[in-house]
Amino acid sequence: MKVAGVHRRSLWPAPDRRACFAIDQRRLPHRLEVARLSSLADVRAAIAEMVVRGAPLIGATAACGIALQCADAVDDEALHAAKTTLDGARPTAVNLAWATSRMLAALLPLPLPQRQAAAWREAEAIADEDVAVNAAIGRHGLALLQALAAHSPGRPLNLLTHCNAGWLATVDWGTALAPVYQAQAAGLAVHVWVDETRPRNQGASLTAWELGQQGVAHTVIADNAGGHLMQHGQVDVVIVGADRVSARGDVCNKIGTYLKALAAHDNGVPFYVAMPLSTLDRRLHDGLAEIPIEHRSARELTHVSGRAADGGLAEVQLVPDGSAALNPAFDVTPARLVTGLVTERGVWPANEAALRAAG
Amino acid sequence: MKVAGVHRRSLWPAPDRRACFAIDQRRLPHRLEVARLSSLADVRAAIAEMVVRGAPLIGATAACGIALQCADAVDDEALHAAKTTLDGARPTAVNLAWATSRMLAALLPLPLPQRQAAAWREAEAIADEDVAVNAAIGRHGLALLQALAAHSPGRPLNLLTHCNAGWLATVDWGTALAPVYQAQAAGLAVHVWVDETRPRNQGASLTAWELGQQGVAHTVIADNAGGHLMQHGQVDVVIVGADRVSARGDVCNKIGTYLKALAAHDNGVPFYVAMPLSTLDRRLHDGLAEIPIEHRSARELTHVSGRAADGGLAEVQLVPDGSAALNPAFDVTPARLVTGLVTERGVWPANEAALRAAG
Repeated sequence: MKVAGVHRRSLWPAPDRRACFAIDQRRLPHRLEVARLSSLADVRAAIAEMVVRGAPLIGATAACGIALQCADAVDDEALHAAKTTLDGARPTAVNLAWATSRMLAALLPLPLPQRQAAAWREAEAIADEDVAVNAAIGRHGLALLQALAAHSPGRPLNLLTHCNAGWLATVDWGTALAPVYQAQAAGLAVHVWVDETRPRNQGASLTAWELGQQGVAHTVIADNAGGHLMQHGQVDVVIVGADRVSARGDVCNKIGTYLKALAAHDNGVPFYVAMPLSTLDRRLHDGLAEIPIEHRSARELTHVSGRAADGGLAEVQLVPDGSAALNPAFDVTPARLVTGLVTERGVWPANEAALRAAG
Repeated sequence: MKVAGVHRRSLWPAPDRRACFAIDQRRLPHRLEVARLSSLADVRAAIAEMVVRGAPLIGATAACGIALQCADAVDDEALHAAKTTLDGARPTAVNLAWATSRMLAALLPLPLPQRQAAAWREAEAIADEDVAVNAAIGRHGLALLQALAAHSPGRPLNLLTHCNAGWLATVDWGTALAPVYQAQAAGLAVHVWVDETRPRNQGASLTAWELGQQGVAHTVIADNAGGHLMQHGQVDVVIVGADRVSARGDVCNKIGTYLKALAAHDNGVPFYVAMPLSTLDRRLHDGLAEIPIEHRSARELTHVSGRAADGGLAEVQLVPDGSAALNPAFDVTPARLVTGLVTERGVWPANEAALRAAG
């Protein structure tokens, strides 16, 4: 999508294939900086420290990490070790292990001299497929939005989203926001309520920024406000992304998603989850019991960074010294609260039979 | 309750009755500053700008505003005008108009020369009664906590609260936190999950501070995290305050309360509202339709203030320039989600018949 009118991806390889470049998402919305990732260690750190984040983008970046590893060693042991290193960078999003598994499945059957070139081809294929998959999610989601808009002619459709599942969370297009961008292209008026998304403020910083750059009408709200807006008929549909979805359709996504799903259910607002099928973890059934939830540093909650009055980036402390803080990064929304899963192959109900049929 | 080991109230009159003093809640937890309110205009500004906040404390402070007005003019017209000025400072908490109405009811029947002294007596009576009422709420709440703790012997009882309904929201004791302080005094082990409470962070700044000063175990969490904790059995009870409660028991409280009530209901966690009966607005039936919801400045959401690295107070901008923000300050939790109302006269179900009987 666009930044200052110019099309960008969130991740791209260096022309000489000695590095990947990624937009440093810790600096947005205040600064557009690009991080150069030159090694497996760089990629692992970029994922762990959230230079890149978003389940699909984590997968695509990890694939680059395997390709970069191939500059040093391409034997089976080295590739397995690289996968282990990357998979441990963050525990919740299944796309990470999905991408590294796909890389190893492509590379391990090949003779050693062919592996490095093949790794870059596969990593680029993963990135390009992510773009194509998200475009397809956008088309299926657009059909949903058009159907909803038919019930409220003469005003913009009000969509609420949590966290950032836009193009910055993927290689391009996004998952939850792909239908929004498709709606914009199709001339369907949409307004997006953007959950701030504490504690890392991905909504206030990333979603607001990318919607603003793309010229999509939006309003930032506290995470606390969504239920109130739904009670007053100001939300027509909720669409969020996902980090891992169980075989029966339980959805693990950014902490707080479950609360919005409850409010949507209580107010008869449709609640959709946009996800590539690579986010589906068929090995797991009960998402609440089985999906590992990352706990991140308490400091992400106790301190907030942003743009200071002098224009520089600064950090302020919110919580008094001596108070403990806990920072679980994800929660699980039970399938019973999910209206449908918007995938590249269409929109599916969140239940085991439907997801089996989705292939 | 205590600050650095010394008992304090949140509001007290100057010995010469020419001013009131109030802890400036905009500076906490980083600085303990006291604001001197010397006039009706000072009091109105302190309420509107949230030097003082919390429904009971707003009422007690407004009563001081009427008393301060009496230094200038005590005729009926001046007192009615003072009430109008104060009632308009914030629209949602009914305790504001309750306190000013009570002041006028006490003063208007009196001859003019007696009014100023009577105004101070009444304002002090309102403050002292608030303390007594909250202590009674605490005793009734303690009985609830003791009953819940009997189901989970051998570990602290985990209570979740939203916003600040502690002693800083009242003259002393607090509403939702009064049972916690009573539990502490009774030797019942309690741990409090403190919702950060965006956008003004009253949980992270005020609740965490007062619990820390009092030595109560607590952990600050993002507003997004409470549902996840309830899903995993880590919350035994939710207790919040209220800004206005309708005759049928709909509860207007800090934005985001409704989401916690939904999560409590979904997980079988009891959800209590602690409130003086002065928070009950018997004129209103349907809280969702009838209680006016204050919208505050978008800047409260787009910018966050806290303690900078140099120890000073500083503000940082979260949201990109050009993005709109909306800041509704309260929401309404339907009575069907409320397990009970903890008042100074006991614990009542949230329904019209029970509240009529509560008197």
